[in-house]
Amino acid sequence: MDPVERVRVLAREEGAEVEREDALAVEEPLEIRIASEEGGPVSTFVTTMRTPGNDEELAAGLLFAEGVLEIRSDLRALERPSDPRIDPELKANVLVVTLGAAAFDRAARLRRGTVMGSACGVCGKTSIENVIPSDRPPLTCRFTMTPELLYELPQRLRERQSLFARTGGLHAAGLFSSEGALQEIREDIGRHNATDKVVGACLLRGELPLSDRILVVSGRAGFEIVQKAFAAGIPVVASVSAPSSLAVALADTGGVTLVGFLRDRRFNVYANAERIAKNAPSRT
Amino acid sequence: MDPVERVRVLAREEGAEVEREDALAVEEPLEIRIASEEGGPVSTFVTTMRTPGNDEELAAGLLFAEGVLEIRSDLRALERPSDPRIDPELKANVLVVTLGAAAFDRAARLRRGTVMGSACGVCGKTSIENVIPSDRPPLTCRFTMTPELLYELPQRLRERQSLFARTGGLHAAGLFSSEGALQEIREDIGRHNATDKVVGACLLRGELPLSDRILVVSGRAGFEIVQKAFAAGIPVVASVSAPSSLAVALADTGGVTLVGFLRDRRFNVYANAERIAKNAPSRT
Repeated sequence: MDPVERVRVLAREEGAEVEREDALAVEEPLEIRIASEEGGPVSTFVTTMRTPGNDEELAAGLLFAEGVLEIRSDLRALERPSDPRIDPELKANVLVVTLGAAAFDRAARLRRGTVMGSACGVCGKTSIENVIPSDRPPLTCRFTMTPELLYELPQRLRERQSLFARTGGLHAAGLFSSEGALQEIREDIGRHNATDKVVGACLLRGELPLSDRILVVSGRAGFEIVQKAFAAGIPVVASVSAPSSLAVALADTGGVTLVGFLRDRRFNVYANAERIAKNAPSRT
Repeated sequence: MDPVERVRVLAREEGAEVEREDALAVEEPLEIRIASEEGGPVSTFVTTMRTPGNDEELAAGLLFAEGVLEIRSDLRALERPSDPRIDPELKANVLVVTLGAAAFDRAARLRRGTVMGSACGVCGKTSIENVIPSDRPPLTCRFTMTPELLYELPQRLRERQSLFARTGGLHAAGLFSSEGALQEIREDIGRHNATDKVVGACLLRGELPLSDRILVVSGRAGFEIVQKAFAAGIPVVASVSAPSSLAVALADTGGVTLVGFLRDRRFNVYANAERIAKNAPSRT
């Protein structure tokens, strides 16, 4: 399915009215159903709005971020529904995820709880404890990068975004090596989805944890973005925009370097600044 | 609780590094618990990340958008948990909503379903049918506004936003009269929350449906924004940014006028353009 849909709009500018073509980001629901390898009924885990494409990655990344998948082998199969009576158009918006028994149990426990697994907890402190239980160490990977390298990343992300995404219709998430090479980029109408797709792609290839990597997001850095990075072992998160209070608190506790307002050759560091080299090569 | 938290950050700009103060949007979970007026156990309906403040409005608006509340009287009480053993800090992030029996049943049915009630449905068409069942008419309220009036709204919204929100840390939603008077404004780290708070405030005062009103949002117009407007009876939604494909389809079916890219004295109309007068007073 094309992630962009073309429509006719009425454009109004300073008294003039003209009908012209406009491009829209496609938004469609994806229903993620879970099944146990041991059989039993298939049920809906979550329905989320997303831009079609890389759905398997989205499902894998989302289930990983929610703690349902802990390792690659928890995921036994990812398939469209097999029932031949189902309309193909509907099938394109459903994924059936077959889980190992332990992962299926975790999913069932989550479903009995609240809507957003990663947002559980009745205060910020509890939310952080849910993500980082006392027996889970913070990320300690110790690579450092120069400010000069960080300055370059948003531009490298933008160069690889689709023309459409650059107009603001889609969010992007990019995974960079510690040397600043762009390794994965995903675009979606949901900023969280773009990150889930990036992490999901790596999970499906058995590449987690993503030590020595930098996640760059085109939007803000809220709690859930940092939570997803921490879960995947990504030690540096950089946003072109503002972080939230709880994102900063989580990054601080989790050993994640959190950079915000990364644009126009400047940035702020909100947590774990030690991964950023003090002496940047000056550009004179 | 203050919606803004001040932190020390390391700001890096062109080789220079300086520690200074920065303001963050506060993000904390709100757990919405539901109880029946007929008694029985209290359970979590949803936990959502939000900026503290106007929590009662957020809970009311969210439950209305999800179809749990249909009329004001479905809502019997909105209270913090009464158990004196609960830490006051935790209480600030929990609201117990007591519902009439019919509304409680609807909530229970929703909880057995999927994570996002408004995103249900295995394709866009089904999502729209969930929001607008065949027995529900589209919005037919027939007021018209001039393009000139529309041009003014984002600036009026910005003038009333907090200084902090204007820096991009918070989303805003504003409800305007058909003459362009700003009647309600709410700010939140979540764009959906800002709209839920605006609608919730009106619901709590018994003012729904909001005919002859214009909703202006500081972010994009996705499916859920249009869905919330339709549920509240708001016939015009204007976003300073892009709409999604499904938002346009829902607005079209629901009789909602959908305006996008409303900035710099221009806009696009994506659906139901008949509420916008053809002949604007020219400004020469």
